[in-house]
Amino acid sequence: MCAKFSVVGKRSPKVGAVELATGKAKFTTDIGLPGMLYGKVLGSPHAHARIKKIDVSRAERLPGVVKVITYKDVPRVLFNPSVWYPNSLDPKDKYILNEKLRYFGEPVAVVVAVDEDTAEEALELIDVDYEALPAVFDPEEAMKPDAPKLHEFERNIAAHVMNSWGDLEKGFKESDYIFEDRYITSRQAHCSTEPHACLASYEDGKLTIFSGSQVHFKVRRLLSEIFNIPINSIRLISYYIGGGFGSRDEVILEPICALLAMKTGKPVKITMTRAEVFYATTTRHPAILNVKAGVKKDGTLVAMEVKGILNTGAYASHGPVVAGAMCFEDVGMYKTPNFSCDIYVVYTNTPIAGAFRGYGNSQMSFAIESHLDLIAAKLGIDPIEFRKKNVIKLGDVDRSYGYTLKSYGLEECIQKSLRKIAWKKEKIETTTVKRRGVGMAINRQGSGAAPALEEFSGAFVKINEDGTVAVLSGAVDIGQGISTTMAQIVAEVIGVPVEYVKVSNVDTDFCPADRGTYASGCMYISGEAVRRAAEDAKKKLLDAAAKIMKVKAVDLEIVDGIVRVKGKPSVKKPIREVVPEEPIISAATFKATMSPPSFGVHFVEVEVDTETGGVKVLKAVCAHDVGRAINPAVVEGQIEGGFVQGMGYALIEDLLVDGNGKILNAGFQDYKTYRPCDLPEIESIIVETIGSNEAFAARGVGEAAIKPSAPAVANAIFDAIGVRIKDLPITSEKILRALKSL
Amino acid sequence: MCAKFSVVGKRSPKVGAVELATGKAKFTTDIGLPGMLYGKVLGSPHAHARIKKIDVSRAERLPGVVKVITYKDVPRVLFNPSVWYPNSLDPKDKYILNEKLRYFGEPVAVVVAVDEDTAEEALELIDVDYEALPAVFDPEEAMKPDAPKLHEFERNIAAHVMNSWGDLEKGFKESDYIFEDRYITSRQAHCSTEPHACLASYEDGKLTIFSGSQVHFKVRRLLSEIFNIPINSIRLISYYIGGGFGSRDEVILEPICALLAMKTGKPVKITMTRAEVFYATTTRHPAILNVKAGVKKDGTLVAMEVKGILNTGAYASHGPVVAGAMCFEDVGMYKTPNFSCDIYVVYTNTPIAGAFRGYGNSQMSFAIESHLDLIAAKLGIDPIEFRKKNVIKLGDVDRSYGYTLKSYGLEECIQKSLRKIAWKKEKIETTTVKRRGVGMAINRQGSGAAPALEEFSGAFVKINEDGTVAVLSGAVDIGQGISTTMAQIVAEVIGVPVEYVKVSNVDTDFCPADRGTYASGCMYISGEAVRRAAEDAKKKLLDAAAKIMKVKAVDLEIVDGIVRVKGKPSVKKPIREVVPEEPIISAATFKATMSPPSFGVHFVEVEVDTETGGVKVLKAVCAHDVGRAINPAVVEGQIEGGFVQGMGYALIEDLLVDGNGKILNAGFQDYKTYRPCDLPEIESIIVETIGSNEAFAARGVGEAAIKPSAPAVANAIFDAIGVRIKDLPITSEKILRALKSL
Repeated sequence: MCAKFSVVGKRSPKVGAVELATGKAKFTTDIGLPGMLYGKVLGSPHAHARIKKIDVSRAERLPGVVKVITYKDVPRVLFNPSVWYPNSLDPKDKYILNEKLRYFGEPVAVVVAVDEDTAEEALELIDVDYEALPAVFDPEEAMKPDAPKLHEFERNIAAHVMNSWGDLEKGFKESDYIFEDRYITSRQAHCSTEPHACLASYEDGKLTIFSGSQVHFKVRRLLSEIFNIPINSIRLISYYIGGGFGSRDEVILEPICALLAMKTGKPVKITMTRAEVFYATTTRHPAILNVKAGVKKDGTLVAMEVKGILNTGAYASHGPVVAGAMCFEDVGMYKTPNFSCDIYVVYTNTPIAGAFRGYGNSQMSFAIESHLDLIAAKLGIDPIEFRKKNVIKLGDVDRSYGYTLKSYGLEECIQKSLRKIAWKKEKIETTTVKRRGVGMAINRQGSGAAPALEEFSGAFVKINEDGTVAVLSGAVDIGQGISTTMAQIVAEVIGVPVEYVKVSNVDTDFCPADRGTYASGCMYISGEAVRRAAEDAKKKLLDAAAKIMKVKAVDLEIVDGIVRVKGKPSVKKPIREVVPEEPIISAATFKATMSPPSFGVHFVEVEVDTETGGVKVLKAVCAHDVGRAINPAVVEGQIEGGFVQGMGYALIEDLLVDGNGKILNAGFQDYKTYRPCDLPEIESIIVETIGSNEAFAARGVGEAAIKPSAPAVANAIFDAIGVRIKDLPITSEKILRALKSL
Repeated sequence: MCAKFSVVGKRSPKVGAVELATGKAKFTTDIGLPGMLYGKVLGSPHAHARIKKIDVSRAERLPGVVKVITYKDVPRVLFNPSVWYPNSLDPKDKYILNEKLRYFGEPVAVVVAVDEDTAEEALELIDVDYEALPAVFDPEEAMKPDAPKLHEFERNIAAHVMNSWGDLEKGFKESDYIFEDRYITSRQAHCSTEPHACLASYEDGKLTIFSGSQVHFKVRRLLSEIFNIPINSIRLISYYIGGGFGSRDEVILEPICALLAMKTGKPVKITMTRAEVFYATTTRHPAILNVKAGVKKDGTLVAMEVKGILNTGAYASHGPVVAGAMCFEDVGMYKTPNFSCDIYVVYTNTPIAGAFRGYGNSQMSFAIESHLDLIAAKLGIDPIEFRKKNVIKLGDVDRSYGYTLKSYGLEECIQKSLRKIAWKKEKIETTTVKRRGVGMAINRQGSGAAPALEEFSGAFVKINEDGTVAVLSGAVDIGQGISTTMAQIVAEVIGVPVEYVKVSNVDTDFCPADRGTYASGCMYISGEAVRRAAEDAKKKLLDAAAKIMKVKAVDLEIVDGIVRVKGKPSVKKPIREVVPEEPIISAATFKATMSPPSFGVHFVEVEVDTETGGVKVLKAVCAHDVGRAINPAVVEGQIEGGFVQGMGYALIEDLLVDGNGKILNAGFQDYKTYRPCDLPEIESIIVETIGSNEAFAARGVGEAAIKPSAPAVANAIFDAIGVRIKDLPITSEKILRALKSL
């Protein structure tokens, strides 16, 4: 975008695009090892039960079966599958396999056999005597004193998290109006294209695991703890990864495969069926959010109180940290002088809820942005103006995190969006049956680092003899394009074409430790680590060139792979002629204590069929301040993907749990997502505010792109038909019911 | 050896010892990839021929055959298989496959099939019409003007290399005696336990090669040149390697497998048969060395002239650089004021000679150390005294390399050896039939770097969260134990048990570039690179610990994995408690311009059966100055292995070429080496002279251990029976013939 860059700001083709498009890219699902065995999991037929007796002898006698493991075979080490930091809020409440089962489909036993069919067949030969226990599926029910208890936590409360400032009581007293409402969000599934798979081998004390994780180094540490083996004896390797969205920010198959490899002495692979991915990985946390806001007549927010309950399912996983993120991130961007947010994280006998793009703030954003829209409508204030009045601005001190805002792109995002959307101008083409409306919502997003979470990355850079460059990073590309943007950063710094730069896959034996891919932090944190390593490598390269070219290093520049004297471009040499035999290598790290926030806005135009309740999204305009777009195409990919996932969240996506705790729609036949042919016109607008030095001022946009989508859709529906649906997804049925009750 | 070290100087078990001893270690021969094809090579039935016509259609029609390649299919890029530096003396004289064939067994065509048997069968279906050309096998014959010419080099001279100082003519005039003799050395085979194998795959522009090379980074560069693809698109990976001795310091199978993988789109593996390893890899250069020495009556060397011919076989390979090493290394350790050495490197229609432990100086040492023994005997001077008089000493300036000797362990080596060997005292147990004798020879050895060869290495170090340490090095362990000694260096520097440290295998995508394993340079060069990287990592670790422990970093020390306050050892924390989340990583390089030389001596006691000519080596005492022994067991392993390989060179090893250029003994049935049960008592004596700072002052010993072996054996035979055999191997036949001619 900026003329002074050669590579940064360019739409470089995504690394691996050809391999992905031609089906040649290898995913963990494609990987095999000689002599590999296959695992299949027996899932619990009860949402809550205790294994009274389990007999695997019939299964083990089936020809081709090598081993069957149960809870009796696993290390008695409790862990949290969120693999968070050792000092995390997230409680350790899970074994690899357990005698007590807490959700429908929870692994009871795992069969390893010479092929998948045999393993599958053997599942039926496992004799289990279950003691069914009373189950609870609703978090409010679960919090009652006499509810069935999942873990040793009073009232099934895994955590209670809060954030507050000012004097809430005083705030409400000073308010002219108080608006209170209850918002309910659904159990969205991640729906990554690649099903979860894991291949583990254990040879001579070395555990090697191929896994499409988002957090390889954290998984490594956790496995070290569970199996009590040194970190150096564990290696995790990534291949292509077909989407994560948070579902891979979790240990699921790795400890099982590791244990099986250790037990059998053979490589063991488990590939989940699509149904298993739906019921046995994780989902978004269903949330109940009660929002109470006090405002002055002029629209000034005076007080805001949010009380929430997160349904974390059978295990806490990320729940407590998700609740923390909810209390601080989006709700914290408003300048309310009196504020309180508190969230209960509650166990129920439902599938585990975990990390999911937005990390609690997709839920919070739906509640807050719907609620503010509701208030604006009640006060007769334009929703944009209402937000502008209350949101923090350049120079303001954020009350959640304590930083002073040094860059601010929200107003530019709004201005540019308004050129692309017909904002409340006229409702042309609106008939009595089909009504059109527009809605909007804003968001605020950090890039992965907050004071409570010191986030880090490291990078090694090597300049090869021919001037090509190898970058070793532990930041994993889960499809979002970080390999591409990191290559651009390195190419820009060193001064070579982007094709010269190859960013490694993740291999924990070789790559510097990296936090992982989550919280929109890769671009900012890992991007800055590779930038620093590239700067150091370039310095060494220029020193070497200076000796050969007999000039001072400061007088040299590198342009498009050519080292030349500044101001005398004819005095030049290609890098390959100045690279010394002594390798040019560098190592650099970046520890981020607070990432600069970005702001964004989504505008959505919908058409609602008042006879069927059907909603058609006609257009979306999504504008995001991304600091600097290293690769606008990659940013747009994130924005479009985020909007579509948010649109699904708004309108159709929900994993349904029946009265026995069983998922009813564990498959793409029944769990609907939007396909490319279903999509509206999406205008992605990139706004750049250069407010930091790290990673060329780039920031993350992965989560920002989903959060305002659902409330913008909901607000547009309200605008179209005057009906506000406060629980997701906003199905035709709910709309029709609401219209009828008008 | 020195009390101040915790890990350095200890006999740490060799890394991988258990895996190797239990047969679990994976070599390239063990590696497979899904869908892999197998290659088999058709070797030339002529020592010199031109392919008039080649028809592979019958072979390609055989079911299971995927592809057959001939010279028509290869890039027309000349290269030198020695993969030396771009500015090397070694001429580029070889294609992957060629129309002209220059030695018996030279690859004519390669079949790729679904299995080895099919590929083998298809070889017989390739129809080749050869035009046999006149061949020449003897290098002196080859230098005649009318000899058959192999390449476009006059008189088949690939190179003529020399080194000289002083005034030779004047020197000989000043001499009291002049002794001149001709020494001839044999064609020794490397006999690595693991046969050469290579597996290549080519996917989406990325060439991945599994190869038990000694020089992965050089192979990478060469493949980049041959196939004109960027270095970043080529990856070489090592597994366990079953011995090299120089035979893997050469490109042999890699370009063939790479080409086949590219042509077929499948992984292709070639595993050589043992016979192929004998005739189609490389051998030691047979040498003819004419030594003329002028001495004063008191034994002072006044002039020395060596004129040599190296038979490089069909291609130059390392020949010219080997000749260079011969002119400088061992012959250059004598203070002769007038000196000249010149070597012709000559093509013949015999198997290619290449790098081999000693690198020309096993040959030179046999000639010089035999010749000096002969002179000492003629002058009636003790061979030890004769050498002491003439060899350079502490403070002397070396005439070959120009350095001043700053450490010198030779005298200590001799003194300590004399306590272990009965040096010319009495010939007890000597009968008229069986006669005993003792002999000795000395050597001088650099550690891989000389002024003409700037040698380098790099290392990355990572400290894991639990205090274990990962070291990324491109230095390849070919069985000599460099992974073990590098781990000890890193453990010593950081202050952790050696078990905490894991040194990577070589993976060119991840490891810093390294020169490779040759010229006894790994310990000194790569050892210093890892030491530097470890120092940097330790500094970062102490800085992190200082913050947590609230003391100054300089007041901290790390002992056995515990960080503690100096002088207050009770104030301590295990490393795992001070490692920050931000990764501790480091990168360091070392460029060596001149490695410090080491000296050594071998004493050998033999018993010669004068009726059969049989020689029995009774005892060997091998003393070497190794700077510092990082791991005495590893050093002793090198010394013992080197002596045994030298003893084989002295007495039994020779690859025999018949009148058609065919190897007669290409197999362990006919090519004899010494087995463990054949070995004499070997006393390894380690002498330490701390004369440098690099790698804790450690130096290489791999080549030093072989060089004085053959002349010490020869000199002992002379001592026993008064007969001097001047051509290797010293067979019973030669001894009997010599005894008869007395």
